[in-house]
Amino acid sequence: MSTDVIELARRARLTSRKLALATRATKDAALLAMADALDGQVDEVLAANDDDVRRAQDAGTDDHMIDRLRLTSERVSAMAEGLRDLARLPDPVGEVVRGSTLANGLELRQVRVPFGVVGMIYEGRPNVTVDAAGICLKSGNAVLLRGSSSARGSNAALVRVLRDAVEDAGLPADCVQLVPADSRETVKELMRARGLVDVLVPRGGAGLIESVIEESTVPVIETGVGNCHVYVDAAADLDMALAIVLNAKTHRTSVCNAAESLLVHADVAQTFLPAVVAALQDGGVTIHGDAAFASYDGVVPATEDDFGREYLSHDISAAVVPDLDGALDHIRRYSTGHTEAIVTGDQAVARRFVAEVDAAAVLVNASTRFTDGGEFGFGAEIGISTQKLHARGPMGLPEMTSTKYVVTGDGHTR
Amino acid sequence: MSTDVIELARRARLTSRKLALATRATKDAALLAMADALDGQVDEVLAANDDDVRRAQDAGTDDHMIDRLRLTSERVSAMAEGLRDLARLPDPVGEVVRGSTLANGLELRQVRVPFGVVGMIYEGRPNVTVDAAGICLKSGNAVLLRGSSSARGSNAALVRVLRDAVEDAGLPADCVQLVPADSRETVKELMRARGLVDVLVPRGGAGLIESVIEESTVPVIETGVGNCHVYVDAAADLDMALAIVLNAKTHRTSVCNAAESLLVHADVAQTFLPAVVAALQDGGVTIHGDAAFASYDGVVPATEDDFGREYLSHDISAAVVPDLDGALDHIRRYSTGHTEAIVTGDQAVARRFVAEVDAAAVLVNASTRFTDGGEFGFGAEIGISTQKLHARGPMGLPEMTSTKYVVTGDGHTR
Repeated sequence: MSTDVIELARRARLTSRKLALATRATKDAALLAMADALDGQVDEVLAANDDDVRRAQDAGTDDHMIDRLRLTSERVSAMAEGLRDLARLPDPVGEVVRGSTLANGLELRQVRVPFGVVGMIYEGRPNVTVDAAGICLKSGNAVLLRGSSSARGSNAALVRVLRDAVEDAGLPADCVQLVPADSRETVKELMRARGLVDVLVPRGGAGLIESVIEESTVPVIETGVGNCHVYVDAAADLDMALAIVLNAKTHRTSVCNAAESLLVHADVAQTFLPAVVAALQDGGVTIHGDAAFASYDGVVPATEDDFGREYLSHDISAAVVPDLDGALDHIRRYSTGHTEAIVTGDQAVARRFVAEVDAAAVLVNASTRFTDGGEFGFGAEIGISTQKLHARGPMGLPEMTSTKYVVTGDGHTR
Repeated sequence: MSTDVIELARRARLTSRKLALATRATKDAALLAMADALDGQVDEVLAANDDDVRRAQDAGTDDHMIDRLRLTSERVSAMAEGLRDLARLPDPVGEVVRGSTLANGLELRQVRVPFGVVGMIYEGRPNVTVDAAGICLKSGNAVLLRGSSSARGSNAALVRVLRDAVEDAGLPADCVQLVPADSRETVKELMRARGLVDVLVPRGGAGLIESVIEESTVPVIETGVGNCHVYVDAAADLDMALAIVLNAKTHRTSVCNAAESLLVHADVAQTFLPAVVAALQDGGVTIHGDAAFASYDGVVPATEDDFGREYLSHDISAAVVPDLDGALDHIRRYSTGHTEAIVTGDQAVARRFVAEVDAAAVLVNASTRFTDGGEFGFGAEIGISTQKLHARGPMGLPEMTSTKYVVTGDGHTR
């Protein structure tokens, strides 16, 4: 495979013209072929992954990262199942978003079309390789996959399997291309391939995403950093609040929709703090608290930094706020615009929180963990956008498309 | 007014929080107040404009540019009427784009919300100042207006009138702010105000737009450059084709949806070329043609450059293509992705053209001049997006919003 990213992008562009015209039947057949191929060649994939894991272990990579990197036959099987799920979802391409006949008789249709070429820049998990390849193929986009160098063997093996299957199903193999991960230069080239690449989706840590936004001339969809708050209002059912806080923090800590910060209305602090501190600590969570929280045993005094952190671990920052306005101010200051939740029984308070919090998702009396394409019923998710342009929140298949106006007349002039 | 753009952006951000919560009734009242104020203070506006026009004349600016700059009482009146039209349009904010109750009983709503702060960077016409202020206000966005220095007196007068009216109507004057046009630095500051400005909309020539895309870290919506083609197919009704070509080229030449290039199928060239050359030349159009066209009197031989040009004048490039594929290849090579039209009576040809041409609008048997927010029935237009992200084609009020997911439960956890 060539290491010239621009050449890869050119091939993707050419291929995208064919893929844009592919019918749903053809695309679904390719997805099923990809799934079967993964199942059939699981041994090759696992062997390549073993090499990656061994190299990472030799380099002293921590266990958490190794776990993200490691594939098992169950994980490969789950990827294949994900592709089969995609085949069952409706094709976003061709959907008429808006349509009318104008006063002069012109027929106006706004129709979903693929972007063309999508670039994915991501870290860690090799399952993103398969998910992104599937979602892009179903939405009619050629994809350029730039994974991390730690997963390069796994990604190469996966892409080899997928490309062969795509070709066997009658679509060009170049629908799915791997961008070499051997140097940081290949990311830079991808970010400057304006005109060849239509959109870049970075998935990973805040540093990766920030650098792509800074440097890319290709339009970027920002994803994923979540400093999510749970605000327990004075009018909250405190048992409900406790269950939501625990679930939001401890159900899965390494994901962007996990809670990272707890705010409690001063009026219920005396009742709620002992209960929530004990419950979180029982769950293995370290609380980085303001003065009110820090008066409890085991609570670490919070620094300014703590309130801005996305821990992705068994840590949570916590503060008592004087009232709803205090909570809103705090969230405005520290929010990454991902997911913010309130627990309250007061309808007027809930309405204000929903109206005034500026985030992709605002949850009332529900755990932050629900901000997820699967939970929202989208069936597939390429990431969670935290920007306001194009897509905000979980992005499913329709979010991976643009639109085109088709206007039909019979000789209309102005 | 401070010349510190970041300070203006901070004020816009603060104001945007209030404006986002304003009801439709409040916003419409402000729009009507703005319209009345323009009508009432037309003399001050015209006096300021006179100074701009005189300065431009002294600088030797060409008549075409002077005409774009010049305001008349009719033009000011039309701006006021535009604001009243906006007041009649539905409020995009609060519209539920998608909504369902999930299997677990969670209520999911995707609701339109304002972006927050919009930056407009534009050239020439002072009417953009009023249009943009109105559209941003109606869509709940605070706006930072950076017009051209040639119109700085007119823009300052207009913004003064608008701000007073907004304040009288009970909204903060800072909903509408003018960014000083005294140096290029103010554009640069606007482009780096990520986090304070949510989206930038450049309107103007290709050079302006290219530089904003290159340099901005604020997300940009690319607008307006249109190298629009009309392709006359072998199966075209040639009378219809002639009318469409003439309308597309000569109805108004200075706009982005004017035709700039004509492609004719070889099979009808012998019949159509004499007619279209004569008709265009009668209309005062200079044809820059390939060899087939250049054999006609008065046709200037086209250079490679001509086919890539957006003339915005009484000029058109023209070529004969061997077939539909030739037309598609030519368009793929030179299109700016704005508007492409075909004239054909062949349904299969029309279907292929619509499917394969990659542009914001594809027109069948209609003039390119119809790609317009007004013609599409949107009632207002901030520009025509030629990019694929977020909005493509004419952008009305809904395109000036983002969305937010609101999820309501009664203690839901995962």
